[in-house]
Amino acid sequence: MKTLQDYIDKLNALNFREMYNKDFFLTWEKTDEELEAVFTLADALRFMRENNISTKVFDSGLGISVFRDNSTRTRFSFASACNMLGLEVQDLDESKSQIAHGETVRETANMISFMADVIGIRDDMYIGKGNAYMHTVADAVQEGYEDGILQQRPTLVNLQCDIDHPTQIMADTLHIIHEFGGVENLKGKKIAMSWAYSPSYGKPLSVPQGAIGLLTRLGMDVVLAHPEGYEVMPEVEEIAKKNAEKSGGSFTRTNSMAEAFKDADIVYPKSWASYAAMEKRTDLYGKGDFDGIKKLEQELLAQNAEHKDWTCSEELMKTTKDGSALYLHCLPADISGVSCQEGEVDASVFDRYRVPLYKEASFKPYIIAAMIMLAKFEDPSGLLKKLEEKGTPRKFD
Amino acid sequence: MKTLQDYIDKLNALNFREMYNKDFFLTWEKTDEELEAVFTLADALRFMRENNISTKVFDSGLGISVFRDNSTRTRFSFASACNMLGLEVQDLDESKSQIAHGETVRETANMISFMADVIGIRDDMYIGKGNAYMHTVADAVQEGYEDGILQQRPTLVNLQCDIDHPTQIMADTLHIIHEFGGVENLKGKKIAMSWAYSPSYGKPLSVPQGAIGLLTRLGMDVVLAHPEGYEVMPEVEEIAKKNAEKSGGSFTRTNSMAEAFKDADIVYPKSWASYAAMEKRTDLYGKGDFDGIKKLEQELLAQNAEHKDWTCSEELMKTTKDGSALYLHCLPADISGVSCQEGEVDASVFDRYRVPLYKEASFKPYIIAAMIMLAKFEDPSGLLKKLEEKGTPRKFD
Amino acid sequence: MKTLQDYIDKLNALNFREMYNKDFFLTWEKTDEELEAVFTLADALRFMRENNISTKVFDSGLGISVFRDNSTRTRFSFASACNMLGLEVQDLDESKSQIAHGETVRETANMISFMADVIGIRDDMYIGKGNAYMHTVADAVQEGYEDGILQQRPTLVNLQCDIDHPTQIMADTLHIIHEFGGVENLKGKKIAMSWAYSPSYGKPLSVPQGAIGLLTRLGMDVVLAHPEGYEVMPEVEEIAKKNAEKSGGSFTRTNSMAEAFKDADIVYPKSWASYAAMEKRTDLYGKGDFDGIKKLEQELLAQNAEHKDWTCSEELMKTTKDGSALYLHCLPADISGVSCQEGEVDASVFDRYRVPLYKEASFKPYIIAAMIMLAKFEDPSGLLKKLEEKGTPRKFD
Repeated sequence: MKTLQDYIDKLNALNFREMYNKDFFLTWEKTDEELEAVFTLADALRFMRENNISTKVFDSGLGISVFRDNSTRTRFSFASACNMLGLEVQDLDESKSQIAHGETVRETANMISFMADVIGIRDDMYIGKGNAYMHTVADAVQEGYEDGILQQRPTLVNLQCDIDHPTQIMADTLHIIHEFGGVENLKGKKIAMSWAYSPSYGKPLSVPQGAIGLLTRLGMDVVLAHPEGYEVMPEVEEIAKKNAEKSGGSFTRTNSMAEAFKDADIVYPKSWASYAAMEKRTDLYGKGDFDGIKKLEQELLAQNAEHKDWTCSEELMKTTKDGSALYLHCLPADISGVSCQEGEVDASVFDRYRVPLYKEASFKPYIIAAMIMLAKFEDPSGLLKKLEEKGTPRKFD
Repeated sequence: MKTLQDYIDKLNALNFREMYNKDFFLTWEKTDEELEAVFTLADALRFMRENNISTKVFDSGLGISVFRDNSTRTRFSFASACNMLGLEVQDLDESKSQIAHGETVRETANMISFMADVIGIRDDMYIGKGNAYMHTVADAVQEGYEDGILQQRPTLVNLQCDIDHPTQIMADTLHIIHEFGGVENLKGKKIAMSWAYSPSYGKPLSVPQGAIGLLTRLGMDVVLAHPEGYEVMPEVEEIAKKNAEKSGGSFTRTNSMAEAFKDADIVYPKSWASYAAMEKRTDLYGKGDFDGIKKLEQELLAQNAEHKDWTCSEELMKTTKDGSALYLHCLPADISGVSCQEGEVDASVFDRYRVPLYKEASFKPYIIAAMIMLAKFEDPSGLLKKLEEKGTPRKFD
Repeated sequence: MKTLQDYIDKLNALNFREMYNKDFFLTWEKTDEELEAVFTLADALRFMRENNISTKVFDSGLGISVFRDNSTRTRFSFASACNMLGLEVQDLDESKSQIAHGETVRETANMISFMADVIGIRDDMYIGKGNAYMHTVADAVQEGYEDGILQQRPTLVNLQCDIDHPTQIMADTLHIIHEFGGVENLKGKKIAMSWAYSPSYGKPLSVPQGAIGLLTRLGMDVVLAHPEGYEVMPEVEEIAKKNAEKSGGSFTRTNSMAEAFKDADIVYPKSWASYAAMEKRTDLYGKGDFDGIKKLEQELLAQNAEHKDWTCSEELMKTTKDGSALYLHCLPADISGVSCQEGEVDASVFDRYRVPLYKEASFKPYIIAAMIMLAKFEDPSGLLKKLEEKGTPRKFD
């Protein structure tokens, strides 16, 4: 792509009309062309920023963020995406709100949305909760819009739930599309989405699930590797299988990290809690059994510690394609000898891939901005054209 | 009103020149025409947003918020109002500031105001404190402006104090103006501002006080109902009486919820703490007697529990005009069986009025924006004309 | 200066090209002309704001703030500076981030900077830490920019470190330049940078160090006064000595507040912790010896209490030049009988200088904005010209 027109032409060839006035929950709820529209628009917005063309499509308006878990990169990515489009971020800090005061999600959703064009939510702590919460919010604002309460309907962007982490995995994917010179070059490539040991506990399942749910659509050979007991949600595995069949790729599962890494073109070694454990934890939480949660935590940490050999070592990396598979991570990684004694990855491996890893992360603001634009504007490619013609500089030089 | 010009013409017929460079503390400190200017400008700003005309009148500048109590809807309303006008919200989080470091209110007020066009304050916790604090801040910035410290004078907007809650009650009022098809149709209508049972404690008096202080000016029959011991500030009752005399309406007080609801056109059932109890609490707080406060709290909760029959039930609603009085609430409400076992309102009543209730809340951002514009601009109606001619779209489509 | 062109002409006569794409850590790392460029541009931006000319040079972009200590005026100054230039402030609240999750400073610095044009950091708590931390961040984003991770390189502005407080001391200096009618009139003027008693403990050394490091460059007679045991960093004293030699001023140290105040044109009485004590504290902190820190704190408070006579009294003020030296403070001050029983300054002295003190503080947003513009734009004076020609009003009237 050399000019903005190239991106516009590509967009014009895609059918993504169904995204207008909708939300973004899970990648597998979107068609291939819709996902390609996100990638293309993300690249177009990046091109514009790099060429100092303003991408402000809102003169005013709010972007609401709700973070039910700590976050640095997603928080800043969402803020960057909103800012780029002209929306001001307003964080719903539940500790400073009257939410505990007994109001319903439906009510809060409407109360914060009078001037909101987007609501971004991160809620990944409990199985069966995060995605459901997002749907409750989206239904509430849809209803509010239909009832004439809201003048505009804010689009909901899933900033990580219990099932998927679409902004992360789409940023990861756009990164590998760029690294391999085009999505067509990913066909037949082997990627190892592997569990790795971490001394911490309870990391969300949304990244491995998001990975197998998306990458299987690109004709890749996707291998999910983990020790016994670290299974992901069976529903998502089913989706991965069907995707692979359709795309001409494959989806396999193994309990051997070595098998997954062998001849892999790309590796994504990362810790997560098992689905079964997370479900148990959610149940205990529901019962308010905090002693039970502590006990479970100790058990899970002990279980983790039995698999310290699941680490992305130099030795394992040597077994990948030409000894030089592309290493992916959503960051921050647990680096052996740096952020912990023994962790997900050898320090020398991490360090060798630091620059591509940081680039991988840099796609997230653009992915989010593209999701917002596709949901809020009926004709995004026409809009790009108008922005180019207007030619307001991002930085007035 | 069909065109922006209609609002401009209406504004031009009103005298609100005294609002320029002033603050907004209490509705009864403003003339009828000034309040009508707020309503009219709020409607005009809403009209503009609905017609995708930018209302940005500041290219840069800050809107400072100070919340001394938790808040969701007022926080977001203030943020929305500022954003709509082009001001960036900067929250003075007293826990992250050096205020405890021993500086005076006068100093802080100046230090945060070098680039501030508005300061919004919510301080409703202690009788005799909130409004006084706001005046200290407003005096300080006025002095700072006169002394050449501040290049511009930020206007102060009362986002709820111990005496009044003007942005709430004016939003409520604009809602009923719309529901009844014009302020002239409110004349002679009966409104019940009634205490209602809540299992929580210490809710501010500013809503009932704001209601009787404003609605009595519209020629309405305003009935204030509460159990003995839940009196509001006598000064405000005096104002309500005088208002009613002047407007041709009436102001009565009763200890019977049934009496208040009978044939009412509008009902506003809501819990509050008694003035006497709040004064006692303020004294204890002043003495640092936290055990005393806890004991008082228990006493007051027990006192509340004697009045569980003060609830907006279906039975009571049937006694209102045609059994279908408009139900108001500032939200969040204590809904029986939803947010608490027994509360202010039956779930079925609340649910039937959910849509109008949310619409009621939707006026607050516009009310706040109108207050800011009337204080900061000498010729707001000329400004609207210029904005229309400029025609910058709110959302670039 | 009467027109914007006067400021532009002055800027054009200065060499500050080396500031482009660089950071601002310590005033003594900048040339005289570079500092003069900051003062001139700060005045120009103030002139523009006072004349309702928009200074927005960014259409979008983020200004990241990192406050590792409480702050009111610096926080609002940074927010104001960013807002004035068109950047949206995004605070990196380390308690809400995943930083504890074991990621490196290098990683965080890149992750927050994808759309950042400036990073402002306040980190003044531990000797040898704050400035070093800022350099780690600046090196990381420089590397990220060179590696193609960051599309633009955010400039780093030191909002207070263990060594210097450049935005404070430059605002103080711009204030005295204005009070004395030009920097040339400061030559030969005596300024007393004096320790003063405060009942609190551990105030940073950055203000006295910043003062002697900058004011000695202006040909002033700078006297540093403190009781024995309250020495500042010897490296900074060395810099002050060399500066004084070069500028034709002088730098002397005394253990007598009276001597420092005698015939002084300007006095800056302010408490600080001794360098030796702060080093000891940093060591204890490093060892996690919190009991040791508490014990040290008690010792230091006792030591402070031996010097309650070090206060800016009316008596001492009488001994200054014509009994009317200009009184400076970075605020908030410990005012005897107001914010504490016995403190840094008599209430009557403070009150007499309140207006100039607040004006002193009002320069900080402009100083910060000027630092950002000089680092981010190759031709700031050309930019001023363009902004004037464009003539967008700050407030649309």
